Amino acid sequence: MDQQLHQYIDAERLRTDITRTAEFGTVPVEEGNCRTVLTGTDANRHAREYFVERLDERGLDVSIDSVGNVTGRWVPDGVDPAAQAVATGSHLDSVISGGIFDGVLGVYAGLESIRAMQDADRTPTRPIEVVAFTEEEGGRFSDGVLGSSVAIGATSVADALAVTDDTGVTLGEALDRIGFGGEGRLDATEWDSWLELHVEQGARLEDAPASAGIVTHITGTIRCHIDVLGEANHAGTTSMEARTDALTAASELALEIESTTNDIVETDSDTAVGTVGQFDVEPGSINVIPGAVHLGVDIRDVEYESMERIVSSIRHCLSRLEDERDVETAFSRPYDIEPTSMSERCIAALRGAAARTGIDTLELHSGAGHDTMHVARATDAGLIFAPSEGGHSHSAAEWTDWNDCATTTRLLAETLYDLATE
Amino acid sequence: MDQQLHQYIDAERLRTDITRTAEFGTVPVEEGNCRTVLTGTDANRHAREYFVERLDERGLDVSIDSVGNVTGRWVPDGVDPAAQAVATGSHLDSVISGGIFDGVLGVYAGLESIRAMQDADRTPTRPIEVVAFTEEEGGRFSDGVLGSSVAIGATSVADALAVTDDTGVTLGEALDRIGFGGEGRLDATEWDSWLELHVEQGARLEDAPASAGIVTHITGTIRCHIDVLGEANHAGTTSMEARTDALTAASELALEIESTTNDIVETDSDTAVGTVGQFDVEPGSINVIPGAVHLGVDIRDVEYESMERIVSSIRHCLSRLEDERDVETAFSRPYDIEPTSMSERCIAALRGAAARTGIDTLELHSGAGHDTMHVARATDAGLIFAPSEGGHSHSAAEWTDWNDCATTTRLLAETLYDLATE
Repeated sequence: MDQQLHQYIDAERLRTDITRTAEFGTVPVEEGNCRTVLTGTDANRHAREYFVERLDERGLDVSIDSVGNVTGRWVPDGVDPAAQAVATGSHLDSVISGGIFDGVLGVYAGLESIRAMQDADRTPTRPIEVVAFTEEEGGRFSDGVLGSSVAIGATSVADALAVTDDTGVTLGEALDRIGFGGEGRLDATEWDSWLELHVEQGARLEDAPASAGIVTHITGTIRCHIDVLGEANHAGTTSMEARTDALTAASELALEIESTTNDIVETDSDTAVGTVGQFDVEPGSINVIPGAVHLGVDIRDVEYESMERIVSSIRHCLSRLEDERDVETAFSRPYDIEPTSMSERCIAALRGAAARTGIDTLELHSGAGHDTMHVARATDAGLIFAPSEGGHSHSAAEWTDWNDCATTTRLLAETLYDLATE
Repeated sequence: MDQQLHQYIDAERLRTDITRTAEFGTVPVEEGNCRTVLTGTDANRHAREYFVERLDERGLDVSIDSVGNVTGRWVPDGVDPAAQAVATGSHLDSVISGGIFDGVLGVYAGLESIRAMQDADRTPTRPIEVVAFTEEEGGRFSDGVLGSSVAIGATSVADALAVTDDTGVTLGEALDRIGFGGEGRLDATEWDSWLELHVEQGARLEDAPASAGIVTHITGTIRCHIDVLGEANHAGTTSMEARTDALTAASELALEIESTTNDIVETDSDTAVGTVGQFDVEPGSINVIPGAVHLGVDIRDVEYESMERIVSSIRHCLSRLEDERDVETAFSRPYDIEPTSMSERCIAALRGAAARTGIDTLELHSGAGHDTMHVARATDAGLIFAPSEGGHSHSAAEWTDWNDCATTTRLLAETLYDLATE
């Protein structure tokens, strides 16, 4: 009997691609591995160029679209180039001081899957594409998942290119500077199906334990921007009674969000999370009563209803703070994505491939967004998780065992092949 | 009967000095008057040079000490130059985007008092000195009141000159750059007594109403630096149960400080204030659970015991947060000044001069530090407040009516003359 496809996955080749990519934007740390690869920086250019070289090496057709999404397309001999492709991939950008697997594993696992098919002489009946989406993390431009948003038509090319960073540079300018402002628009609606492999960024696989995760749902995300406005005044000469302290008012709000979310977790939906990650105090001097606090709140769950309940509790709390503490408040909700289910077809294909290859899996939800959240609106989509040691991510402590990288890549390769072969 | 001394106070001359000084370091604002005069900057040099010119103009002996304290000494004909002087003054530096009266009023009210005595041919029996202390605000070097700390021997000249700003420039270098690194050390212990006129920076005089405030006590100040350390993690993939959120823990602390201080105000000491002015969140991204919060807390009262009670409640709360929320905490207390009483002799002299000249006064405490807090440890000291419109200070909204400037300067002049005449 022939070797099975997954046996052609070359763990060393995959590791080399990930560790070489980790050299771009390296952040020196005492422990762990850390990189900062913001869209449109030199580090991002190096990561993209290295990817394009690897695509060229295997004879894939490389295209760069207007927002910098990079696609390598493999049309094996005898395959109809007009057939809908099966696509895979992830992203090469990172958060500030992020880890080396987040995004990168999925991009190179996708390429390694194609390389394994080539090496094994397996010819699917559909083209296969491997994609690195632009600005998944939102570390420099937008709130993230920008390239995939354009690929499903949710954001126009013009709007995306006009997004600015903190210094006023547009995405268009940043991409042109690194030579990755391409042409046209990658269109995810043309794909037959999509699979992404990503690190879990949580510890459920480690705790189970399981070698791979099959994601059933991606949580929705609501982000709220809130201003709490009091009156900045002298900390020594303003009596407790005379002050309108924005910070203590905002502290009540942060605790209210936490306790409401905990209540929902206990009674209704144990996947709900609510986080105040931004809390910027003005003027921020030790001897001045804070006059303003600007909060950024992130709310997620697989149930949209429980997300809405957290938002309601925020609105209610703000109204109470206005009454009780005499602060003014402002509320906006610029980012609102409903929970997404992965397609039954992709989940079934993943289950089948896992059973065939003897990979132990856990079915679970994803609390992180991922480009797949967007792609799932355009075509059948599936998402595989690789275990994250200790659940760490977005930091130097992010780590996925090289064996787990290889195992999950085997599951990806087998499933891609199944989806692409009729 | 001759004209009284206070009738020689020239309100226009005083106003000119304050408005001319307001031209140095002016910050353009839509409403109000704003200046930034940090120690050792060109704006600070201009303000100092203008002051030295005014001292020269009236024949005062000008000296600049090693830390840049500027003194103008008036020894009227027939006065023993070896006699202990009566001193007055304040400071010329400002906070970032501060007002035009804070410090400047006291410096020029002191000079105007001497000018009035000269014009009125009143000859006291002691020399009178007018001082502009270096770095009262702590806007660039140290926590503030630095020049007066050196003048009472609490800080050595060498230590003061070695203090660095955020960019590593020392006070010594900054003073040399503007030509105000002098020689020797101004010694406040050599003074017979001291009076400072300062804007109230609160609204008690306006509310009373009263034209001048006679300060009885200056609150002590304790400043605490606190770190609350949790674990930075992904806001979407880390369940509520698995997170150690530094921000919600720190929010509990901020509310605990507020409620403890409110309790003390209600039951024991209505002058107590406790403020969390600094609250720096790391990493501060909307999609990351905060891993650390660095807090700066300012505690003041005329009763040291109630200040200690607030500190105790902080220590207790931190210990509880470690137990209940699994955070780590660090506490330091780098700044600790006990409450200061103004001398009975100076208070009596102020009361007498106010009664004689028909100025309506309010006796009150000072919640702000002031150089007088230091000088009171070296000699008999008194502090006069001028009304602040709306209580505003350290901002463009700081304002003291020109009539109030003149009235409080009249009280200063009469009292200085009484103290300096035996």
